Amino acid sequence: MTTTGEFLRDALDGPWKEVRDQCREYLASDIFATEPGLDTQTARARTLKQMQALVDTGYPQHGFRRENGGTGDAGAAVAGFEMLAYADLSLTVKAGVQWGLFGGAVENLGTKTHHDKYIRPLINLDLLGCFAMTESGHGSDVQQLETTATYDPATQEFVINSPTPSSRKDYIGGAAEHASVAAVFAQLITDGEGHGVHCFVVPLRDENGNDLPGVTTSDCGHKGGLLGVDNGRIMFDNVRIPRENLLNRYADVAEDGTYSSEIENDSRRFFTTLGTLVRGRVSVGGGAAAGARVALSIAARYALKRRQFRPAKDEPENVLFDYLVHQRRLLPLIAKSYALAFAQNELVRKMHLIQTGQNVDPEGQRALEKQAAGLKAAQTWHATRAIQEAREACGGAGYLSENRIVTLKADTDVFTTFEGDNHVLTQLVAKELLTAYADEVRDYAASDWIRFAATMARDVVRERSGVRQMIQTLKDRSDETVEEGDLSKRAVQLQLFADREDYLVRTAAQRLRNGAKEGDPFTAFNNAQDHIIKAGSAHIDRLILESFIDGLDLIQDDEAREIAETLCDLYVYSEVEADRDWFIMHRFMSVERAKAVRRGVNELCEKLRPHALTLVEGMGVPESMLRASMLNDANVYERE
Amino acid sequence: MTTTGEFLRDALDGPWKEVRDQCREYLASDIFATEPGLDTQTARARTLKQMQALVDTGYPQHGFRRENGGTGDAGAAVAGFEMLAYADLSLTVKAGVQWGLFGGAVENLGTKTHHDKYIRPLINLDLLGCFAMTESGHGSDVQQLETTATYDPATQEFVINSPTPSSRKDYIGGAAEHASVAAVFAQLITDGEGHGVHCFVVPLRDENGNDLPGVTTSDCGHKGGLLGVDNGRIMFDNVRIPRENLLNRYADVAEDGTYSSEIENDSRRFFTTLGTLVRGRVSVGGGAAAGARVALSIAARYALKRRQFRPAKDEPENVLFDYLVHQRRLLPLIAKSYALAFAQNELVRKMHLIQTGQNVDPEGQRALEKQAAGLKAAQTWHATRAIQEAREACGGAGYLSENRIVTLKADTDVFTTFEGDNHVLTQLVAKELLTAYADEVRDYAASDWIRFAATMARDVVRERSGVRQMIQTLKDRSDETVEEGDLSKRAVQLQLFADREDYLVRTAAQRLRNGAKEGDPFTAFNNAQDHIIKAGSAHIDRLILESFIDGLDLIQDDEAREIAETLCDLYVYSEVEADRDWFIMHRFMSVERAKAVRRGVNELCEKLRPHALTLVEGMGVPESMLRASMLNDANVYERE
Repeated sequence: MTTTGEFLRDALDGPWKEVRDQCREYLASDIFATEPGLDTQTARARTLKQMQALVDTGYPQHGFRRENGGTGDAGAAVAGFEMLAYADLSLTVKAGVQWGLFGGAVENLGTKTHHDKYIRPLINLDLLGCFAMTESGHGSDVQQLETTATYDPATQEFVINSPTPSSRKDYIGGAAEHASVAAVFAQLITDGEGHGVHCFVVPLRDENGNDLPGVTTSDCGHKGGLLGVDNGRIMFDNVRIPRENLLNRYADVAEDGTYSSEIENDSRRFFTTLGTLVRGRVSVGGGAAAGARVALSIAARYALKRRQFRPAKDEPENVLFDYLVHQRRLLPLIAKSYALAFAQNELVRKMHLIQTGQNVDPEGQRALEKQAAGLKAAQTWHATRAIQEAREACGGAGYLSENRIVTLKADTDVFTTFEGDNHVLTQLVAKELLTAYADEVRDYAASDWIRFAATMARDVVRERSGVRQMIQTLKDRSDETVEEGDLSKRAVQLQLFADREDYLVRTAAQRLRNGAKEGDPFTAFNNAQDHIIKAGSAHIDRLILESFIDGLDLIQDDEAREIAETLCDLYVYSEVEADRDWFIMHRFMSVERAKAVRRGVNELCEKLRPHALTLVEGMGVPESMLRASMLNDANVYERE
Repeated sequence: MTTTGEFLRDALDGPWKEVRDQCREYLASDIFATEPGLDTQTARARTLKQMQALVDTGYPQHGFRRENGGTGDAGAAVAGFEMLAYADLSLTVKAGVQWGLFGGAVENLGTKTHHDKYIRPLINLDLLGCFAMTESGHGSDVQQLETTATYDPATQEFVINSPTPSSRKDYIGGAAEHASVAAVFAQLITDGEGHGVHCFVVPLRDENGNDLPGVTTSDCGHKGGLLGVDNGRIMFDNVRIPRENLLNRYADVAEDGTYSSEIENDSRRFFTTLGTLVRGRVSVGGGAAAGARVALSIAARYALKRRQFRPAKDEPENVLFDYLVHQRRLLPLIAKSYALAFAQNELVRKMHLIQTGQNVDPEGQRALEKQAAGLKAAQTWHATRAIQEAREACGGAGYLSENRIVTLKADTDVFTTFEGDNHVLTQLVAKELLTAYADEVRDYAASDWIRFAATMARDVVRERSGVRQMIQTLKDRSDETVEEGDLSKRAVQLQLFADREDYLVRTAAQRLRNGAKEGDPFTAFNNAQDHIIKAGSAHIDRLILESFIDGLDLIQDDEAREIAETLCDLYVYSEVEADRDWFIMHRFMSVERAKAVRRGVNELCEKLRPHALTLVEGMGVPESMLRASMLNDANVYERE
C-alpha cells in the first residue's frame, strides 16, 4: 500500500479508525470468508457460526450501555457494522438483526428488568431474537400495523393476535429458524381502547426449535441474496405473554389495565419509539456504502490489469482504465464513495453524541433522524448503481461468484427497501424540511399534511446559517477572488448546491400553498410528489458536499489532499452533470457553462487516472478481503 | 384478459404471432417452471431435462434449413427464444448455446459433410455442443484470440493448443459438464503462416463424460445467475483433430496444407464469419426485453393490488399505482418495452428476409449487423434497469425468489456483457455510421480508425432518405398543421430524434477530423469516445421510435390504438426528459419547452393510469407464466 493511499484511508476511517483497524485484522480470518453458492441451509448455519466468532472479538458489546454489559460506544457499533460489510453481508445483516434491532429494541424501549434479563444473554447469543415489525400488508406505513396486543386484566397478560392475513409478520430476519424470541410491534389495546403501536417481547420457539402454542412461523424461502439470513413469517393466534413483556420505557399498563405514558400523544410517542431505533438506518446506509467500496475496488483493480484492444497496430493492448469511457464509469462512483464515507462519519459522530448523552439539543434527535433517512437512501441507491456498474465493467469475469461482485449486488439489493423504502425516506426528508420538524405532521395523511404544510411552509426556517457561514469561510480562505460561476472553487460549488436546495424547497412550499387552495388536496400532493422528493434529494446532496469539503481537512498529507481535492471536484462536476438540465432550466447555469461541465468531468478523469490505485487503496478495503480470483490468479487475466 | 389488451398483444406479437401462441401453450406446463433456489447440480440437470422436452415441441427445428432437417424459419427461432425467456432464462440460454450458437456455427460456417454429420443429432440432443470463442484474455477483441490450430500435413490433422494462460477458453456454456464437442475458434496456422481466426469442431469428452486426451475442462463455478447453464473453461494441449473438422464454408486447407478462401482479406473473412452468427445478438436482445416484460408485468400487477398510506384520514389506503412517483417509475419503462418490442419485431423480420435469401441487398447484411448490435445494447440495458426498478417497486416482496423478479435480475444481468459488451457494441454502431460500412475499418485499432474516419467522415452518406420521407408522411397525415416544436405530433417527435442523431454524427466526424490533425491519434479518439458512443445511441433511439410509430398502425382496434398512441407519447416524452440537458444545450429545445416535458410526462402518466392493466396484458406475458406468489396468494397482500 502506498503512503498516499494510507493517508487517504486514515481520513476516511474517521473517528473510529481504531475499531476499523481491529476489524480489518479479525475479518481477514477465513472464518469470515463465505464461499459463494452455498445452499440456503449451509449458508444459514455458517452465518450463525460467524456470529459466534464475532462474540469473541468484543464487537457486539459496542452496541450496549456499560450498565448492561456493553462498552457504550454507539459509534463503534456502526463502524463495526460497516466493516462487517467488507466480509459478508449476510453476517452484517444477521448481526444487525440480533444486536442492533432486537438488542436495540430491548435496550432502548425496555427498562431495567428487561435489560437485566435479556441483554447479556443476547450479546452472548444465549438468546437469539428477531425484530417483528413489518407485516405483509404494512411496511412503510408501520403506524397501521394490524397485529394486536390486547390486555387481559384477569390474568395480567397481553394476548397477541394476527387478525387478518395481511397482519402476518413478514420478511423477519431470524423468524424462519434461529430466533427463540421476538420483539413484536403491535397495536396495544386496553379495555377496548387502542393506544397505538408498542413493542412486546414474545417467545416464539421452545428449546427444540418448535413453535410455541399459538405461534406459527414459516420460511420466506429463497431470496435474491442474503442467503445466510433466515427470513420468515409469523402468525399469532391468542398467544399470551406476561404484562411485564411490554417494553415499557415510554408507556406502561398497570395490573388493572390502566394505560399511562409520559408522552400523551399517541403519534408522538410512536415516533419517539422509532427515533430511538435510528441506529438501524445509520448502519444500513453505511453497510451499503461499504459494499459499494468493495465492488468498486475490485472493478478498478481489474481495470488496471485487464487489457483489451490495441491503441495502434503493433502496440501493446491498453488496460481498460486507459479508456475515457471506462474512467467515466468508475471514477465518479469512486468520488461519490469518498463523499459518502465522509458524510457517514459525520452522521455517526452526531448519532454517537446524542446516544451517549453528549448532545442534548432537543432538535438534534429530529435532525439526526432526517439526516439518517436521507443518507440511508443516498447510500443504498449509490450501492445499487455502483455495484451494478462494477459488475458490467468486469464483463464475464464480473458475473462469476468467485469475483464477489454479483454476491455484493444480490446481498445489497434489498438495502434500498429495508429500514425504510428509499422513496418514502426521501419524501420524509422533504416533509421535515417543509414543516420544520413540526410534531403534528408525522402521521398526517397526504391531504392533511398538505393543508398543514400550506400554512407552515411560508415560515419555514431552513438550516441555512451553517451553510452561509461555510461558504463565507471558503471564500475567505481562497487565495484568489472567487468569481461568480467558477465551478472549480469550493465556495461556488457549495453555493450552487445550496441554491438548488433553496429553490426547490421554496417552490415546493409555493406549490403546496397553491395546491391547498384548489380542489382535492391528495391530487395536489400527488402532482407535486416528484418535486417534493427532488427537494429532499437536493438537501441531502448539499449535506454530502459539505461533509466532503470538511473531510478534505482531515487528510494529513499534502499529496493525498491534493488528489482528494481533485476527486472532490470530480464529485461536484459529475453530480452537476447528472442534474445539468435542472441547473440550466432554472437559470443557475448558462448553456456554455453547462457544456464546460462535461469537458470538466473528462479532464478530471484524465487527471485522476494516474492515481487510480491510490484512490482504491484510500477506500480502505484491505486486499485480504477482496478475495476475487481474477485479481489473485496471477497471470490469466493479465498480460504485459 | 380484456379485448383491448388482446389487440395490443396481437400487435406486439408481430409476424410470428402463431409461434408465440404455441409457446404460450406449452411453456405453461410445469416442466418449464423452474423453482428458485435449486443448487447448481439440480439446476443444471433440470435445464437439460427441459431442453429435452423442448425437442418434442418442434422448436429447435426452426433454427435450421429444410435440407438439414429444420423448418428454415429463422424468425420463428428468435420469436421462440424470446418466449422461452418468459419461462426460464437458464433454459433460454442453454438452448441458445446448443441450437443457436453451436448449431448455428455448424450450419453457417460448415459445409454439407458437417451438416449431414452433426445437425440432426444436435437438434435431437444426441450430440451436445458448445461454442468456444471467448478466452480469459479476449472477449470483445476476438480477432486477437490466442488459441492456435496448426495444420500438420504429415497426419492431415490440426493441432489445437492453448499456448498461454490467457488463451484459456472461458465462460463457455456447456463446457463444464454437458458438451461432448466444441466449436472452437482459433488462429489457423499452415506452414508457419497465420490466416486469422477460424472455427473447428473439437471433441471434448468421451461417452462417460471424461475429458479426452489433451483436453482439460474445468468449471466456472457459481455465477450471479443462470445456474442451469454449466459454464466452463477449456485448455488444449496438442489436441489433434482431422483436417475435415475445419468448418470450411469460407476457407479451406488442402491435404498438403495449402490455404484457400474465396475471401482474400483475413479481416473481411473473419467479419463475414461473425456476420453469419448475427442471430445470437438478435436473440439475446429479444430475450432480455422479454425478461423485462415479465418483471414489469409482475411489478405493475402488484402496484394495482398493494395498498399503502391513506390519502386522507379515514379514507381507504391507496394502491401504489395511484402515486405519481410510482407511475413515473413503471409507466415509462412499460412504454419503452412496447417501443422495443416493435423494434425487435422489425429487426427479426429483416434478419429473416436476409437469412432465408429473400433479401439479397449487399448492404442489407451490414445494416442488419449494426442494427442488431445497437438493439442488443438498448434492450439489455433496458432489461437491467427495468428489472431493477421492478424489484425496488415491489419492496420486500420483490426480494423473495417466489416472486420471480430477483431471479430475472440475476439471470439477465450478464446479457449486457455476452454476445458483445454493450459499450463496445454501441461504439461499433457509431463507427459504422461514421464510416458508412467501409470494409477496411473493421479491425482497425483506434489510431488507425481515426485516421481513416477523418478522411471518410466528410462524405458519409447517412441513411436519412427513409426518415425524411417518414417525417413528411406523418406531416401529411396529420389533420392539423404541424407546428414547429409541438412535441405531441409524431412528425415533430421523429424530427427531434433525427436531428439529434444528425447533429451528433456530424459533430463527431468533425472532432475526428480535427483530432487526426493534432498530436496523438489515440488520445484524439479517447477524448471523443463518449461523444461517439452517444451518436451510436442516438441512432438506435431514432430507429426504435420509427418502429414504435410503424407499430401503431398494426393495432387493429381504435381504443387499443388510442392507448398505444398515448403510450408512444410517453415514450417520447420520457426519453426526451432523460436527455433534456442535451436538447437544451444544443438549442433543439427552449427552456420553456423543456419544462413542459416534465409536466407532459406527469400528465401522460395520469392519462394512462386507468389503462395500466390493459397495458400489462398487451405486453403478452400470460398470467400462467407470472408465477409470483404475491399476485396469486389471494388476500395476503390485498385489502379492499
